[in-house]
Amino acid sequence: MDPIAQLVAKAGKRLGPKAVITDPKEIEPWVIDWRGRVHGESRAMLAPSSTEDVVEIVRLAAEYGVPLVPQGGNTGMAAGATPPGDGSALLVSMRRMNRIRSMRADDRLALAEAGVILATLHDAAHEAGMRFPLTLGARGSCTIGGLASTNAGGTQVLKFGTMRSLVAGVEAVLPDGSVHSGLSGLKKDNRGYSLDQLLIGAEGTLGVVTAVALRLVPAIAARAVAWAGVESPSKALDLLRFLEGRTSSIEGFELIPHASLDLVLKHVPNTRAPLSGEHAWNVLVEATTADGDTDIGAELEQLLAAALQQGMIGDAVLAASEGQAEAFWKLRDSISEAERADGQTLAHDISVAVADMPEFLTKASTKVERAFPGTVATGFGHLGDGNIHFHVRAGSHAAPDWYESEGADITRFVDDLVTAAGGSISAEHGIGQLKREEFARLAPPGRVHALRAIKQALDPLGIMNPGKLVP
Amino acid sequence: MDPIAQLVAKAGKRLGPKAVITDPKEIEPWVIDWRGRVHGESRAMLAPSSTEDVVEIVRLAAEYGVPLVPQGGNTGMAAGATPPGDGSALLVSMRRMNRIRSMRADDRLALAEAGVILATLHDAAHEAGMRFPLTLGARGSCTIGGLASTNAGGTQVLKFGTMRSLVAGVEAVLPDGSVHSGLSGLKKDNRGYSLDQLLIGAEGTLGVVTAVALRLVPAIAARAVAWAGVESPSKALDLLRFLEGRTSSIEGFELIPHASLDLVLKHVPNTRAPLSGEHAWNVLVEATTADGDTDIGAELEQLLAAALQQGMIGDAVLAASEGQAEAFWKLRDSISEAERADGQTLAHDISVAVADMPEFLTKASTKVERAFPGTVATGFGHLGDGNIHFHVRAGSHAAPDWYESEGADITRFVDDLVTAAGGSISAEHGIGQLKREEFARLAPPGRVHALRAIKQALDPLGIMNPGKLVP
Repeated sequence: MDPIAQLVAKAGKRLGPKAVITDPKEIEPWVIDWRGRVHGESRAMLAPSSTEDVVEIVRLAAEYGVPLVPQGGNTGMAAGATPPGDGSALLVSMRRMNRIRSMRADDRLALAEAGVILATLHDAAHEAGMRFPLTLGARGSCTIGGLASTNAGGTQVLKFGTMRSLVAGVEAVLPDGSVHSGLSGLKKDNRGYSLDQLLIGAEGTLGVVTAVALRLVPAIAARAVAWAGVESPSKALDLLRFLEGRTSSIEGFELIPHASLDLVLKHVPNTRAPLSGEHAWNVLVEATTADGDTDIGAELEQLLAAALQQGMIGDAVLAASEGQAEAFWKLRDSISEAERADGQTLAHDISVAVADMPEFLTKASTKVERAFPGTVATGFGHLGDGNIHFHVRAGSHAAPDWYESEGADITRFVDDLVTAAGGSISAEHGIGQLKREEFARLAPPGRVHALRAIKQALDPLGIMNPGKLVP
Repeated sequence: MDPIAQLVAKAGKRLGPKAVITDPKEIEPWVIDWRGRVHGESRAMLAPSSTEDVVEIVRLAAEYGVPLVPQGGNTGMAAGATPPGDGSALLVSMRRMNRIRSMRADDRLALAEAGVILATLHDAAHEAGMRFPLTLGARGSCTIGGLASTNAGGTQVLKFGTMRSLVAGVEAVLPDGSVHSGLSGLKKDNRGYSLDQLLIGAEGTLGVVTAVALRLVPAIAARAVAWAGVESPSKALDLLRFLEGRTSSIEGFELIPHASLDLVLKHVPNTRAPLSGEHAWNVLVEATTADGDTDIGAELEQLLAAALQQGMIGDAVLAASEGQAEAFWKLRDSISEAERADGQTLAHDISVAVADMPEFLTKASTKVERAFPGTVATGFGHLGDGNIHFHVRAGSHAAPDWYESEGADITRFVDDLVTAAGGSISAEHGIGQLKREEFARLAPPGRVHALRAIKQALDPLGIMNPGKLVP
């Protein structure tokens, strides 16, 4: 028997039949990344139900020299959880580890296993009278382990930060089979290098995250959502700073160019423009309060009225109901879908310093459109985080193989612009497999050296998600 | 010439005479840790004035195999910046790198070099209409680099977290002489393992921190400080949760036992008890607001009145003036000084989960006093962080060499209790040299292995602060 077959046989004997899936039909949906770009192969899918199971699996992996690819909801944007195509590695599905071990409103902490789905955690926190503030489009499928392993961001980062800020501790099985237990919930602990922080964003290359301690915040008592028209990204940033200087309640601030809104209105049913006039740029603002006595709608309305008077914005409307608030958010959340419906699109998840984003956005769009005639380059998203989804669309006259033939060139061009601006070619999606080559091309040699040294030190056998993240 | 002499000569030639201090008188104050416990030796003290200087020094250290001991204000509690006693290493004083490179209220970011003194940064932030919220007793001497390298805490952690939460990026010279430039101020950046987070709390063992990007918060418009008497740590925690459930303005919450207050009143001039009655425990509460319209005093008074009515506290008084607020804080800040004046004291900087602290505190004190008759064990400090300074006093009948003869036994006893409770033997002071043995004794083998592997991977020549932190 080859090593993989031996490992699978032993795992079945030790962990029980439920923990080893060998039916190719059952495995198939999980070996393709969700955007359908990367097709991998895994002869079996291991499905541990406890940390002890994961220890057993990691030990077997070391014994047989078979690499593991940990996976949560398979919603990653960089194919970081997709196994290699040669079948040399085994998928480890964390989805059976889906217990919320505890949910404590008094300590403001939840302990969730890696396979807990984000929406499930949201609901559980809500039932406990609390809130886990991080959220993103894939909330119905993505898992806590995957969110921690990719240091996920989303739409509420402005106020609460990425997973790195919200994780109070990590439990993980390290490549040597030892368990790192960081779930004690200690608020202060200075015993050496933070393995918790090292595992966050490591994309499963340093160990398998099995559970996470998460910080909770007070439940929302009320929210207000508004839509504003502005003439430029620079004005949008002025607005954000105006608001942030006057209230601590702003937690969402999304920038949407006119062209993206138009595409949504064209392709997505049951959508309408919030404002009657035409504005070059739009901003979606969300303010929330945990205090039931605050009239958050009135506060936001007043602030927007003042911004209007000062010429920061051209027009604005406050959502009159939860339904309208949802409709505003739907416009924002449908941009990628509308773009896909319109033709070929190349997405770049980039960041620069917040103050530099308006200028970067304007200049980069112009440069890309000049260098690649026919393309349309626009950016939308989390202006307040300096994080824009910079999308380049093929334009109506593009060849059907535009994505394959021109994609890599355009991406290199964009990544060069971002790097020259001191920015990041991966703001929130991670490196995975899809961005590894570009990361290797653009990262400073000292950084590449340090990442490789850490990887080699902690995973000398190379059994943890090989071919991902580390250049 | 021996390697140290060669290195010093070359450093003088390349960096100029100001960067190399060889007068033993000038060096002397810096080779003894500030509590006077550890005496080290350094034949010269290198004093770089720029990141380039540090690169040069690190390259020379690697070339000649001479280890470096980076040092800021020399105010550490674990002798992490004190060179070894055999003179085999060279001190690197970061105090000449004291520029605040930028202070941006709009981005809420300050870029400070490692040698900037905390109080200087406070003042600069204040001038810019902002605030850097972390503070602690040594603020007039401690430096930003040291604070980052030890993941310092202090009295405002409850609301703003430790340095780990407040550092937006780190610039450091790595052991291979490359510069890690993490000062871009990107709010989102998912390009692999976070070297920033790895360097925070690494106590100079993985590189020399040369500059730090720090998060600023809005300036305080007003603060209210109150003193309350409670019958137990458990009631104190009830009070904290009562307050936190009703306001987000609490940023200081310090627990002080009756015995500690008594010692302060006895030994520290110009102090008086805030409350007339006697309470087994005291709590110092600080509430702040950035909003000029909020009457923070009235809010805190109202909440304390409600807590009094519910039997959570026995009595409370709001400071009537800034002067009285300072007097309340002076009581808290003088505890260590009063204890020293009273006799020999053994300090333990420990943490357990917040919810477990009241029980731990009561039981641990009883156990220590029983195991070591004559001693008095009390805890005071940051209850809301689960971080208590657990001090064991010798008692009046102790031998003059009590500290040396019994200290290690008592500390092991306390550390065992903390470890059994799932806590940390170093909450905010770090490991340095003083806690290294205990850390090695109590840390899980997997953790020890991981820390050693990371250290070896990034500093294979062992030139970065050897003998510190890593077990």
